Amino acid sequence: MRKFPLSKVCQLIEPGPVVLLATLGKSGPNIMTMSWHMMVDFEPPLIACIVSQGDYSFATLRDTGDCVIAIPARKLAAKVAKVGNTSGRDMDKFASFGLTPLPASRVSAPLVAECFANLECRVTDTTPVETYNLFILKVLAAWIDPKQKNPKTIHHHGYGKFVVDGPAIKLKSKMR
Amino acid sequence: MRKFPLSKVCQLIEPGPVVLLATLGKSGPNIMTMSWHMMVDFEPPLIACIVSQGDYSFATLRDTGDCVIAIPARKLAAKVAKVGNTSGRDMDKFASFGLTPLPASRVSAPLVAECFANLECRVTDTTPVETYNLFILKVLAAWIDPKQKNPKTIHHHGYGKFVVDGPAIKLKSKMR
Repeated sequence: MRKFPLSKVCQLIEPGPVVLLATLGKSGPNIMTMSWHMMVDFEPPLIACIVSQGDYSFATLRDTGDCVIAIPARKLAAKVAKVGNTSGRDMDKFASFGLTPLPASRVSAPLVAECFANLECRVTDTTPVETYNLFILKVLAAWIDPKQKNPKTIHHHGYGKFVVDGPAIKLKSKMR
Repeated sequence: MRKFPLSKVCQLIEPGPVVLLATLGKSGPNIMTMSWHMMVDFEPPLIACIVSQGDYSFATLRDTGDCVIAIPARKLAAKVAKVGNTSGRDMDKFASFGLTPLPASRVSAPLVAECFANLECRVTDTTPVETYNLFILKVLAAWIDPKQKNPKTIHHHGYGKFVVDGPAIKLKSKMR
């Protein structure tokens, strides 16, 4: 893993990839699949995400106040779907699906070794949690796996349909 | 335009497409490009989005309390970038870029005829606006253009790089 500039985190989240949310629960590291997230501010990078009260990760995220957002590439798609179909209440998902937790630098939650990007996040505002299950996260550190070149992310269209990144196009744009 | 079920709006927003945000200002319809948005709830569909105070659309969205989220396909990419590079303060972007405003059924903001999907939205909560420029929108009606088959959306990676939808894959998933 190589450190990645916080100023560029928006380029990872803004395209809307399916991500994994890793937390450290009382019985060990846990992981869930998530698609409801967005950038809120550039720098320091703020991210909003929805974690349902029904999700096993909800209480851990609220209680520990931190998490890792890990971004998987196409080759992990089958595991990502399995992570989304199961609950950490019933199993150790890292062990069951062959994912490797790595220690993070700033948070209790683990990085996910197989993902091409990992964002260490702290919950900075829980005000919208009660109404919307909406957490505001501040990215404290970001990591990228330099061995994964041009990773293709996947995008959830519902009921098991995912669309993989296709061709890139370049247009004149002032938007960072 | 054909009416689209509200229960499936998540399938349009969750994959993270670049969208257009249309509003009706004092001097006519306006439009901006937006990538910071996410689903908040399934049904009624709630969407969160960030509209910067610096954007010309900010005051209109806050004052009228409604907007249309229009989703463009690949063929509109060049226009989408132009919309993002300019401000409604200086020009009529619909006229300048050859986009067609159509009357909506429930809101003052216009639909965008050239987009394959249009979501009529009302602002339902402005509490997080002061801190984060974050608006909570409720989708009141959704429309789809049945003539645009399998539209490919575009995803913003920053500084003019956009990635177009590639191949779809099917995985066993319980997630709607």
